[in-house]
Amino acid sequence: MPKKERKRLQVVISDEQDALLTRTAYELSSPERLISKSEVVRLAIEKIARELGEGPTGQIEEYRAILGSEGAGEEG
Amino acid sequence: MPKKERKRLQVVISDEQDALLTRTAYELSSPERLISKSEVVRLAIEKIARELGEGPTGQIEEYRAILGSEGAGEEG
Repeated sequence: MPKKERKRLQVVISDEQDALLTRTAYELSSPERLISKSEVVRLAIEKIARELGEGPTGQIEEYRAILGSEGAGEEG
Repeated sequence: MPKKERKRLQVVISDEQDALLTRTAYELSSPERLISKSEVVRLAIEKIARELGEGPTGQIEEYRAILGSEGAGEEG
């Protein structure tokens, strides 16, 4: 990918989200291929966009509920 | 959340992933509540970890396949 097609994203996450990220990276890693936390974030972005595009409309409500209740919300 | 329970995460994403993020933030937003791209990232992290925890083992293979083929892979 050419340099200008990349953007630096800064996100503040909780310790718990950082731990989730580490665990997911570990679970996706294999002896042949280590997966970094950055890769998990990029994968997660693609997954959530895809699910929202394909899924039933109710999915939006589900995501909003998570945003409303959990540590994913506010700031930034 | 207390300050020390937060971490600053830096991720390099492609223009396309940035556009996905913007679109997802817009889709989750409502006239009552604007959702930022940072919130989408935090939500996406929680979603992917949850799905991996609950889902069938085949999910790991699916995610690895995405990582292997798409712009989610390498660097960082």
